[in-house]
Order: sequence, then structure tokens, then C-alpha cells
Amino acid sequence: MITRLSQLFVRTLRDDPADAEVASHRWLVRAGYIRRAAPGVYSWLPLGIRVLHKVEQIVREEMDAMGAQEVRFPALLPRDPYEATGRWTEYGETLFRLQDRKGVDMLLGPTHEEMFTLMVKDLYSSYKDLPLSLYQIQTKYRDEARPRAGILRGREFIMKDSYSFDVDDAGLEASYQQHREAYIRIFDRLGFDYVIVKAHSGAMGGSASEEFLAVLPAGEDTFVRSPGGYAANVEAVETLTTEPVDYAGVPETEVLETPDTPTIATLVDLINDRFPRGDRPWTAADTLKNVVLKVTDPDGKTRPLVIGVPGDREVDPKRLEAALQPGVATPFEEDDFAKYPSLVKGYIGPQILGRDSESEIEYLVDPRVVVGTAWVTGANEQDRHVAHLVCGRDFTPDGIIDVAEVREGDPAPDGSGPLSLARGVEIGHIFQLGRKYAEALDLKVLDQNGKLVTVTMGSYGLGVSRAVAAIAEATCDDKGLAWPLAVAPFHVQVLATGKGEELFGAAENLAGQLSDLGLDILYDDRKASPGVKFADSELLGMPIVVVVGRGLADGVVEVRDRRSGERRDVPVADAVAAVKELAGI
Amino acid sequence: MITRLSQLFVRTLRDDPADAEVASHRWLVRAGYIRRAAPGVYSWLPLGIRVLHKVEQIVREEMDAMGAQEVRFPALLPRDPYEATGRWTEYGETLFRLQDRKGVDMLLGPTHEEMFTLMVKDLYSSYKDLPLSLYQIQTKYRDEARPRAGILRGREFIMKDSYSFDVDDAGLEASYQQHREAYIRIFDRLGFDYVIVKAHSGAMGGSASEEFLAVLPAGEDTFVRSPGGYAANVEAVETLTTEPVDYAGVPETEVLETPDTPTIATLVDLINDRFPRGDRPWTAADTLKNVVLKVTDPDGKTRPLVIGVPGDREVDPKRLEAALQPGVATPFEEDDFAKYPSLVKGYIGPQILGRDSESEIEYLVDPRVVVGTAWVTGANEQDRHVAHLVCGRDFTPDGIIDVAEVREGDPAPDGSGPLSLARGVEIGHIFQLGRKYAEALDLKVLDQNGKLVTVTMGSYGLGVSRAVAAIAEATCDDKGLAWPLAVAPFHVQVLATGKGEELFGAAENLAGQLSDLGLDILYDDRKASPGVKFADSELLGMPIVVVVGRGLADGVVEVRDRRSGERRDVPVADAVAAVKELAGI
Repeated sequence: MITRLSQLFVRTLRDDPADAEVASHRWLVRAGYIRRAAPGVYSWLPLGIRVLHKVEQIVREEMDAMGAQEVRFPALLPRDPYEATGRWTEYGETLFRLQDRKGVDMLLGPTHEEMFTLMVKDLYSSYKDLPLSLYQIQTKYRDEARPRAGILRGREFIMKDSYSFDVDDAGLEASYQQHREAYIRIFDRLGFDYVIVKAHSGAMGGSASEEFLAVLPAGEDTFVRSPGGYAANVEAVETLTTEPVDYAGVPETEVLETPDTPTIATLVDLINDRFPRGDRPWTAADTLKNVVLKVTDPDGKTRPLVIGVPGDREVDPKRLEAALQPGVATPFEEDDFAKYPSLVKGYIGPQILGRDSESEIEYLVDPRVVVGTAWVTGANEQDRHVAHLVCGRDFTPDGIIDVAEVREGDPAPDGSGPLSLARGVEIGHIFQLGRKYAEALDLKVLDQNGKLVTVTMGSYGLGVSRAVAAIAEATCDDKGLAWPLAVAPFHVQVLATGKGEELFGAAENLAGQLSDLGLDILYDDRKASPGVKFADSELLGMPIVVVVGRGLADGVVEVRDRRSGERRDVPVADAVAAVKELAGI
Repeated sequence: MITRLSQLFVRTLRDDPADAEVASHRWLVRAGYIRRAAPGVYSWLPLGIRVLHKVEQIVREEMDAMGAQEVRFPALLPRDPYEATGRWTEYGETLFRLQDRKGVDMLLGPTHEEMFTLMVKDLYSSYKDLPLSLYQIQTKYRDEARPRAGILRGREFIMKDSYSFDVDDAGLEASYQQHREAYIRIFDRLGFDYVIVKAHSGAMGGSASEEFLAVLPAGEDTFVRSPGGYAANVEAVETLTTEPVDYAGVPETEVLETPDTPTIATLVDLINDRFPRGDRPWTAADTLKNVVLKVTDPDGKTRPLVIGVPGDREVDPKRLEAALQPGVATPFEEDDFAKYPSLVKGYIGPQILGRDSESEIEYLVDPRVVVGTAWVTGANEQDRHVAHLVCGRDFTPDGIIDVAEVREGDPAPDGSGPLSLARGVEIGHIFQLGRKYAEALDLKVLDQNGKLVTVTMGSYGLGVSRAVAAIAEATCDDKGLAWPLAVAPFHVQVLATGKGEELFGAAENLAGQLSDLGLDILYDDRKASPGVKFADSELLGMPIVVVVGRGLADGVVEVRDRRSGERRDVPVADAVAAVKELAGI
């Protein structure tokens, strides 16, 4: 198939879009693949839709190959099923809600667990019908607070979501593994450099879950890896907990006068100066920092929460968000402090905290704050801290919350060595949901003994439109896009750079020969300068470029590999063979 | 490709869905192709999605073949462009509106003229870029007041919409004809019995427009045809107007006492009895019926409107709706009459009507009410009518409104003979939009003389999901669905009816041979009775059915044509050839 660039609905832009934060966004807009219609909402132009279709097709082929069956649910959904599982509320502002002309509440589906569960309940009733895997490739909606990076994180996007249904845990495990393998095949075919990491299940509920992250500095997700093979999304990293410490030798608590210590660093300096330890200097790790937050639960109610972390670590906002879901944490404001006079800002200590304390304020601590550890922390009085405050002796937390930042070099939880951090884009996420949705919506089947059992489910997401952006992000360079063959809108771009019927005739002839091989050809037939044509071909990013230009007088054309930049002149008669070689056909 | 029925996600139902009004809806649900998710909102099961994909593919191939380029716009759209063209308001309650988390107004796209116009404006600027045709296959939303008949008229549905852009009227005409021809190829391939009729442009604006109607009694659209080739949607039929009549011989108006004449029939009886004509009896066609309506304009304001039609015809609600768009007519209620005391219910006459009259009530008449015609009509007094009321002498309408019912036998407007009426389903609609949208959104290009000219556009819709229902409607019978080969989810259904490994082995072997020909095979491998398998195969509707059953002992299998019902026994060795013959390959 030959498409003439002069006829193609595309305009390349010289300037970056104003809102472009990442390279893929910049190039996809400048090369005329996508256009913004509203914040986080994009239109696909002909070049873009061709890539999207190719990605969709690879996903469809592999889902079919694993025995999943394609269906399609509406995007416009009734409220009831989401009410039954609590997600109508839990999704918070991320859910697009609307009312129809009769005032009936509806929503735009952010994900379809409820609908698939109800459909299987509608059709199936026996263990003999299972296992079952269903999928759809469909448009989804999430009213992201911060849509960003073009189609990398949009509010309307295309996802492949699938769901498995099994009668028991072993079945779920097998279905999960089948999906995992299908995802590996898909992401291999799409040419991604990716990692599979342990993930936090978040609002989906359920137990085991893994993310497929394309390793990309532009990614929003931070993940960790160890030399021994541990890999996890930073939200899912579990800090190693240690045994209680013997505190027999720890002195009684001592109140210290600590004026003008607004930060941990100033506090450490002051106590090293005025209250030095005998054995070694105080460090930030000896202090216990108490962070006060206001948590808003899905029902709209708010409650205070204090989190104690070693003073040398910050609370990681994304780990916090994941740990509190569906609650949402916001900073404790002056107004809030006014309501809780026992909280002395800057000097909060755990002595007065805990659900059973007079304040009734919940107090959770970092896993490093084990029984027996001694801390310097606030004295709940202006300008005063206490030293030697021992966990389990002088204060009792309500529980553990693992939300302190993970740092380069922290030990992997499985003992497989020090962690290193990197960034990635989530391109897939697989969950063992378990029975949460089946229970909420009463999906049961008869088992082999004629007994009703609740079905166990898996849920598997794959960002189709996001994958387009992630491939662009992974493969582009400083000149533009550089698609892999598997998803390029066209395999070959033929440029006629020069003048005269003969030259254009030769270019068109060559384009025809290549098209006859089953390759998709973009033929730049425009009356434009060679400079414009070269620049556009690098911007548009077809993997193979054939230049029919000055060399034609000597019987040669140039064949270029867009990604490597490698170029060579070949005799016209050998051009097809050279392209075939690059195309691997 | 072989799919085993035992593995396919489907359950056939014995009972009709409660809300099924038409056969296609009943069978598509009972055969497990679709399921209702909410009123007018459907999910597609594996069998359904296969048909949908095949229809989509045929549409895509023909759109590509005519040189249209595929794009995809979002369904979630900003308000502004629709505000600029007035459609944010004009669409009324049919538009799904919502607000995002920031309170920004958005809508779910019912059709995308605005977005395409803005995109072309964004990318193109010269006559050299035109003509251009763009299309998308995409999910659309309309909050229909009366969603009905399953996917025949849903609130979420899949449409192919395309738009042409030309620099002048001749270009638009050519683009329109290209689309018309592409539609003919598409509907021919889909196997429709269809007519192309003149259409009313409705809310789209623009001038010339035609509808493609699948001829189906279940259709919502009524159309007319004449022996001479005239064809129009009933909303678009223009009544022949006649020349003014000489009224020199008409007597002066005469007030008649007409008590107890609540209907035209009772009125005609009474006047024939008490005030007989000399030449012939009075008929309903001599009376002028004045229908009072309340019209609500898009801005929410209401106004009274009286429509005068000959007493032998009713106002056709669909013709009225089309004529008044974007206004909406509702009946005149008691409250309304109270506000206009000059309107005496049941005795309204045009003597007191018209914008320039004292009442200032707008008065429009049927085209048959020409100057010089004389009427019996209300005297604007209880129990009284007037006779010999002459149009142009005794009353003056504000204008013409062509909304009276069209009747079998009415003359075609082009003189091509008497009209006959039939019903159809609108499967395509093509419009010459002209410059309405380009003007509203300022889409101009430089012409050959370097002068800015406004682009002229066409808009072309094709109901993809509706086509699936319409094909089902056109082809089903009293046993179930009966798909044409071009869109059947599977070409062949192989039934193993009987017991024993040998029989199932033979069926599977045959399925394999047919699959090797490139046919899609549904293999009923279930352990079910022959009766269940036969009934299901008729319900599911694959065009070719091969039964491997009792005859196998004698070396024969049965090959059935689902639509004709024709069956024949063929030797096992000839089965593949028999199927090939039926499949036309």
C-alpha cells in the first residue's frame, strides 16, 4: 500500500506544544500523530491511528492466542453495580459522573470489574463453565487530577482490560500466569525494555499484583531493583522489620530545652552542641519525626492521623497515597491545629497520641520504630524535645505504616542485596483480585459437589494508547520519532529529493515494488526541498527511509535505518533487497 | 480457525427479553450476541463483537478505497466548539452533558462536525490541501427520549462518521457523490435491501441530503416511493403546491350554528344535514382544521403556533418535528388556553390569527391552503363554524408549513406518479452541509487567487452498530438469526449429533479441513442432545451448517443452508466441496 505524503492529512510543526513535558508528547504532536482536544483528551490523526491499530492488533492476537474471548462493554454505565462494590464513592473525583435526561445517575467506566462480574453471573452457573477469560479493547475515562504528558496519562484513553474467572485459588493462579505470559509476549513484540515489579493493589482490592513498567526516565512510577532479582514498584516495597530491641540500658526520658529548631538538622546540631551523646554524635536517624495529616475518607468525613518516621527520612507522597487508599491525605492546616490544642506544631511527640490516649488521635509508625528503640522527639511543649523516649515503654503506636521514602542502597526485603531506583511507565498491571467483586455482586457457581462457591477473579489491564506513547518515548531521539517496524505507521518512507519526471518516476516505481512485497509505504511526492523532506522523514520516524535523489544519475539510491542512523548507497536494482534486509523479510 | 461451542462465552435463552419490540432485538439477546447494560446501552458478547468487527472492516475498506483517511476524535468533548455553532443548546436533552472535577462543562459527542472543522482549520490553509475526506469509526452518545429495539436505536452506539472539505460547490458535489458511491458499495456488501431517499436535513443544517434506508417493517422511518423513481423520507416529502384559485364566485362567509361537533366527522355530518351544498356533499377536505401547539425554542422560551390543515388530514408528528427543529412542539394545555382567551377550543378559525392580528399568534397553513380556496372552519365562538372562508380574502396566513400526513396515493412532487409508503431503518445519511460549520468556526483557506474563502463541507454518517441489528432484522426468521456470509461470526457451524469418539473425531476432522480453507468454524462439541444442537444452530444463525450424526454410519453428513433451509446428505469425502459451493469459494 502506497500513501502519498502530499495527500496525507498531516502537518509537521516547528515548535513544541506549550504543555509538552516529555519527548513523546512533543514529537507526537509535532509530527502530526495526535492533537489535544481538551486537557488530557486527544484526537488521533491518520499517522497516529495507524500506530494505535497496530498496537491493538498485537494485543488482540496475543489475547486470542491465550484463549481469552473478546467482548465489549459500554463506557456509559449505570451506577448500581459500582454502588454495590463501594467504588461509586471510593473512586472520588476521578470518576466522571453524569445524569441522563431522566436524572438517572450514570458514570463513564474507569475499569469494568463490576460489569464483567455481573455478565458472568448472568450467563454462567457451574464450575464446568470455568476457567474463563474475557477481554475488551475499549475507551476508558478517569478524571485525573493532573493529566500529563499527552496520551501517556490522559482522561480518555484506550485500554485492554481482561478478567479471569476461576472456581478456586489454584485456577486463579494458573489464569494469572497465562495472562502474565501473554503480557510478556505482547511487550516483547512491542519492543519494550520493561520490568515486572511487585505492585500495590490500590483501589482494586485483592492480593497479589504485578506491574509491567517500561523503563523510561519520563515515567511517573519509581521502582526498585536488587542485584538478586527483587523488583517492586516503590509503593509496594515492604521495609524489613526487625525484632524488638532490649531497652534495659536506656535512661529515663529527659526533657531538653530546644528553642529555634524548626528542622531536624537544626535540632540535631543543637543537641550535639548542648546534650552530646557519650558514644557517638546524634544523627537525624535518632530523631522521630511526627507528621500530622488530615485524612478524608470516601464518605467525606475527615480525621487526624500522625505518622512517626525516623528523622532522616521523608514520608513518600506516593507510598502514603497508596497506603491510605481510598482515604486521601491533605496537610494539617492552622484551622485543624486549632481544633486539636494538644498538638503543638513543631514539637509533637507520641506521648499524647494513640486511639486510646486522651487525644484519641491515631498514631502509626514506620516499621523501623520497633519496640525498644529510643528516640529524640517532640515534648508536646513549645521549644522542648525529649530524649530517650522508648517505643513500648514511653509510648505505644496504634500500628505500623510503611510510607517512608525508599532510598538507593536500602536492603531488599527478600535479602537479595541493596536496592537501586529507576523510573518507569506502567504499561500493564495484573491483579489477583480474589473474591472481592464476586462477593459484592454475588457471583457463585456450583462446584463438583453441587455446592455453591464464590468465584475467584483476576483483573488485567494494559494501556493501549499509553503503549503508543511509551513506545514513542522509548525510541525517539533528538530529531523526532523512530518507530520499531512492528508498530510503525508505514514500514518505509520513500523520498524523491530532486526534480524531474524521471526522478519522481523512479521513486514511484521503487515505492510500487516495495508495496508489492506487502510493505506499507509512505511516498514523499511533495514539491519541497530535500532539506524539508529529510527533516520531516526524521520527525515522522518511519524505520526505513529510501532516498531517490542526486545519486540516481549514477544509478544509486540511499537506504537509511532511521534508528541507527546508518546510511548506504545501493544500486537501484539492489534497493528492494536492501530494504528487505532491514525489514527482516 | 475453530472455536468450540463448549468454550465459547455464550448462553442461549429460551425466553424473549421483556423489552424486545422487534425480532432482531429478541434474537440477538436470546442467541447471546448482546446484553442490556442500561436503557439503550448494550454490551457485546463474543458472537456479537465478531459481527461488529466484520461490519466495521467492510466500512473501513470502502472508506479507505474512496480515499478517505481514518482519524479518531474523543467522545468526551469540550463545550466551546458546540457553543460556537449553537448546538450545545440546540441539541436539547439529547446531549449528554457533564462537568469534570474542576466544574468545566463537557459533553459526550453525538456527532463531530465541530471537531473535524477545527482540526482542518488547525492543519490546513490552502486550496491545494483540498479536497479532503476524513472519517472515524467511533462510539457516540445521544440521550434518546425513547431508546428502542436494542442496538437499533441506542444511547451509546458505534458510528462511522466522515466529513468532506472542499473549496467550492462543485467540489462538494463531487465529494458527496464519492461518498454516495462508497455507501452503495458498503450496503451492497452488507447485503441490504435498501433505498436512497431524499431526506430532511434536521439539526445538521445544510441543503441536499439523502438517507439510506434498509427496507424493513420494523423501521422507525416511513418513506415514500413512486413508480417513476421518486423516493423520500416522509419528513422530506414536499407537497405539490397549486396556483391561486379564482374565488369570484364564492359567497360571503356565513356563520353556522354547529353544536355538538367535537370532531371533523360530526361537523361534516351536521353541515350536510343542515346546510347542504347544492353541487355535492361537504367532505372533510372542505374543512380547515386549526391545530394549536406550544413551541419551545432552544433558549427555553415558548410561543403559541396554530397550523391549518385540510380536515381530512392529520398533522404528522415526525414531519412536524422535522419542520420545527430545533424548536420542540408540545400540545396546548388548558393553562395555555387560559392565557389566550381568543382561542376558543374546538372552534378556532384563522380570522383572528396571524402575527399582524390582534392576537399576534403565528398562523401557518398546509400548502393545499392556497389563495382563493374556501373553507368551513371555526368561528372563534362556542358551537359555531363559518363557511365560505376564503384564503386571501377573509384570512391571511403567515406562511406555509408542510407537515400534514402523506398518504398512499398522494402524487409525487416530481409528477412521477402516485406515492406508496413503506418503512425502513436509517443505516446511512449523507449531507451537503455547505458552509454552516465552516462559517461558525471560521474555517477558511486561500484560493487560487490568494483570496480567503470559506470551506464547504459534507457530513456522512453510517450506523455501524445499527447495521448489525438491521442485518439481523432483515435476515432472521421464526427460528432465529440467519447471517449472510459476509458478516457471520462464523461461516460454518459443525454439529456432532450423536455419541462415540469416532463421530466426534470425524466432526473435528471435518472442522479442521474447513478451517484450513480459511473459513471460521464454530464446532458444537457439547455433550448435548441433537435437538438442543439443532435448535441452537438455528438460533445462532451461521449461514452453513454441517451435521455429523446418524448418517456417518453410512458415510454421509448433512449440509444445510441456514437461510434457504435446504438440506442435503453428501458423502463425507464431498462435504468440503459442498461447503465450498455454499460459501462461494
